[in-house]
Amino acid sequence: MADLPLRKTRLAEPETPGLILTRRQRMGDQLYGQILEQIVSGRLPEGTRLPAEVDLCKMFGVSRPVVRQALQRLRADGLVHARQGSGTYVMARPAERLASFAQPQQVAEYLRSIEVRLVLEGSAARHAAERRSQTELTAIEAAHERFRLEAERGLMTPDADMAFHRAIAEASGNSFYASLLEHLHEAVTGFMNVSLHLTRTSPRERASQVLREHALILEAIKLQDPDSAQVTMQFHITQARRRMVDRSRDE
Amino acid sequence: MADLPLRKTRLAEPETPGLILTRRQRMGDQLYGQILEQIVSGRLPEGTRLPAEVDLCKMFGVSRPVVRQALQRLRADGLVHARQGSGTYVMARPAERLASFAQPQQVAEYLRSIEVRLVLEGSAARHAAERRSQTELTAIEAAHERFRLEAERGLMTPDADMAFHRAIAEASGNSFYASLLEHLHEAVTGFMNVSLHLTRTSPRERASQVLREHALILEAIKLQDPDSAQVTMQFHITQARRRMVDRSRDE
Amino acid sequence: MADLPLRKTRLAEPETPGLILTRRQRMGDQLYGQILEQIVSGRLPEGTRLPAEVDLCKMFGVSRPVVRQALQRLRADGLVHARQGSGTYVMARPAERLASFAQPQQVAEYLRSIEVRLVLEGSAARHAAERRSQTELTAIEAAHERFRLEAERGLMTPDADMAFHRAIAEASGNSFYASLLEHLHEAVTGFMNVSLHLTRTSPRERASQVLREHALILEAIKLQDPDSAQVTMQFHITQARRRMVDRSRDE
Amino acid sequence: MADLPLRKTRLAEPETPGLILTRRQRMGDQLYGQILEQIVSGRLPEGTRLPAEVDLCKMFGVSRPVVRQALQRLRADGLVHARQGSGTYVMARPAERLASFAQPQQVAEYLRSIEVRLVLEGSAARHAAERRSQTELTAIEAAHERFRLEAERGLMTPDADMAFHRAIAEASGNSFYASLLEHLHEAVTGFMNVSLHLTRTSPRERASQVLREHALILEAIKLQDPDSAQVTMQFHITQARRRMVDRSRDE
Repeated sequence: MADLPLRKTRLAEPETPGLILTRRQRMGDQLYGQILEQIVSGRLPEGTRLPAEVDLCKMFGVSRPVVRQALQRLRADGLVHARQGSGTYVMARPAERLASFAQPQQVAEYLRSIEVRLVLEGSAARHAAERRSQTELTAIEAAHERFRLEAERGLMTPDADMAFHRAIAEASGNSFYASLLEHLHEAVTGFMNVSLHLTRTSPRERASQVLREHALILEAIKLQDPDSAQVTMQFHITQARRRMVDRSRDE
Repeated sequence: MADLPLRKTRLAEPETPGLILTRRQRMGDQLYGQILEQIVSGRLPEGTRLPAEVDLCKMFGVSRPVVRQALQRLRADGLVHARQGSGTYVMARPAERLASFAQPQQVAEYLRSIEVRLVLEGSAARHAAERRSQTELTAIEAAHERFRLEAERGLMTPDADMAFHRAIAEASGNSFYASLLEHLHEAVTGFMNVSLHLTRTSPRERASQVLREHALILEAIKLQDPDSAQVTMQFHITQARRRMVDRSRDE
Repeated sequence: MADLPLRKTRLAEPETPGLILTRRQRMGDQLYGQILEQIVSGRLPEGTRLPAEVDLCKMFGVSRPVVRQALQRLRADGLVHARQGSGTYVMARPAERLASFAQPQQVAEYLRSIEVRLVLEGSAARHAAERRSQTELTAIEAAHERFRLEAERGLMTPDADMAFHRAIAEASGNSFYASLLEHLHEAVTGFMNVSLHLTRTSPRERASQVLREHALILEAIKLQDPDSAQVTMQFHITQARRRMVDRSRDE
Repeated sequence: MADLPLRKTRLAEPETPGLILTRRQRMGDQLYGQILEQIVSGRLPEGTRLPAEVDLCKMFGVSRPVVRQALQRLRADGLVHARQGSGTYVMARPAERLASFAQPQQVAEYLRSIEVRLVLEGSAARHAAERRSQTELTAIEAAHERFRLEAERGLMTPDADMAFHRAIAEASGNSFYASLLEHLHEAVTGFMNVSLHLTRTSPRERASQVLREHALILEAIKLQDPDSAQVTMQFHITQARRRMVDRSRDE
């Protein structure tokens, strides 16, 4: 294992304020963070093979389930990739400035909030298409317009983005969608404020992609098409995650 | 409209502490509550046809969208039923004691929390089947066992039920599932404490149904079968709603 | 009703070879086709209000459920739009040449095949991400490359498109996905051969959109990301339908 | 590996008439069949640990991906169970008479048809709840009644069961659901005729479970409740698979 570039540190149990995590989750997150940090910094370049599970256990002084959880999450986040019978390889590098702006723990939490938003907002968008009143539609259109104006002036604030998503949740005819979304938003708001600076795509390119995705969601809700509303919202959320970890460069 | 038993009252805009609702939602909920109360009390027996939309607007001094929202929700909750080209009929009567224990607004909120739990907990159960550790499985089994013991002693507390659902959310590898579930739970906890007394099915019969559904969810998570875990959890939640409004008696 | 531009014809029951339809479905499809044809030809321009349900019944000599089915399908296809309490309006016009190339019945069948493909191929893509072997991934990549080369040369054959979708179905580890997709494909193949000429977007613009969507599906399957694979496939299929009926022009 | 009860045979490539399978799928199915046969016959009792992947490769002269595919399918079917860091264990035994009545390949195909029916029929039931006419509802009720009468007389033919499912597919407003279901049905009809004799649950107990599940689906479609219709249908299908492999005995 001598030639492996992975820096090893015995993990300490971290504090995670505001979140009740099991010990395994905390340790898994720590290991996730360690590996993420080294991918971000370039110490583990794309294409590098990670040590085998059994070696990661020894290197970091953790049990097999802790290692498995960290690897599983890195895979789910599109940062590493398991090739059958061969091992786990670094797949993508998040934006370079990530390391200086955000804690790995924050990245992990942000990616987890995305996982929940996929189902929650997909369902909210479906109900909005089924139930929105004319007033609620007008509110969604206003939020879309505000975001569009900011984007065209080179701005792209999380607030304007969030206002669009909130307007849809509020049009769902079920106020819990908006309150749960708010809850998720508060948990990651600190991170979101920096994350807009962190994606590798250029701000202008990214803004036009986000705008186009928002326009498709708005159209489906306007046309009262529940299937399209759900699918375009879920597509938008998977693409948001994708822009963050930036796993494809050949597009 | 003279022969219609529906008591009419001009609606006042109610207070809904802790929830941000649009005016239309608040008025729609009020109307929903008025009709629900009269169904519960038996003043609107099963099989009765409700007044036409246009007449409901006049009777309650509200706009068409408000009436539509109230009817849509009554339909979604299985309390009334639209027959094409004929009108809307009372379909089911919730448990009789509902009227004395709970506010219609609480019933509306409870049914809305169910709608969100369907997607949220379905997804949590899927992830729990994919990711649960042995320790997390043991915690789910312990919660199941505790609920089983209470049920066999004729008790069935919301706490024991909630503990089972929480243990699954905590096994999902994503702590947001548990915190959002907690958030939903707190919003309806007052109602849930009385709701167990409100379903029409006998406590013993209901307890054995709930237990059987819990056992199927547990089995799917134990066997690491994500599809079955999601489907059995979603089935359990639709049945919980069904037991509340008790729309079928011929089973 | 005199000022309504809708041409009325008493419907005859049509032949639908190879498909077992109920009488109501057949009549509903006929009416759907009548209205679609008049939208396509421009006789019913965008923004026109359709006659009320009761008037459509009289005009075409059909029952209320037949009218409802036709309107529901036109709505689901994004061709008309119901405004609450006001009526049904023409929303979008399919490509102009549609009328000369395809029978309305073929359009109806094509849109129905899309509805099933949404769930079927979404699920196949999810399983492909979970289970594909290296060989199966290579086959998907080859099909993608073949489609890309054709598209760059200004061609875009249904065969090359279908080959990409088939390669994914074959990587699902369940051969039924491929055989059901084949079954669907055969039912609409005649129509698909002309449909590529029928969308309003320019061939080059459309080709690059389709390519980009295919690339996202391929990436998700390559990275073994089941959620993204399902969502990007479902997004692609909703967009295919959208390009056909071309309901938005302001993008 | 000497103490392992697994009988080893070098696999020959089998014929699978009517299905286009890749070589890997064919080999994986063969291995699946070998292991299934030995579980059914009791040569591999519940609780037995299977040989490691690398040893299975040597024993059967197949590559690692072939072994992985066979194990993955056995896991998905609830026949074996992977314990993290420990190995794969026999979990459940299908009905004993399975070995004499059905080829393992037939069992594999049947379980695969179930996987597709989960999404296909879930979607059909949702659309049936949204779109069924009164006539279509009556047809579903008639099919339900016919099945009920047979079940009460101790019969339970696949035909009566299939007629219920077909009536729902036909009420979906999209004739492709019925034709694809027919296609799936024909592929496994030979097996389904014997499978009713193969489940471990007693015929009478099973009939009453199936009836109850059908009644819940019917109720949801009658009440025009799309969510419940989809969820109860998907629950029914997961339970059908469960009754076949009979993985729980302590219920």
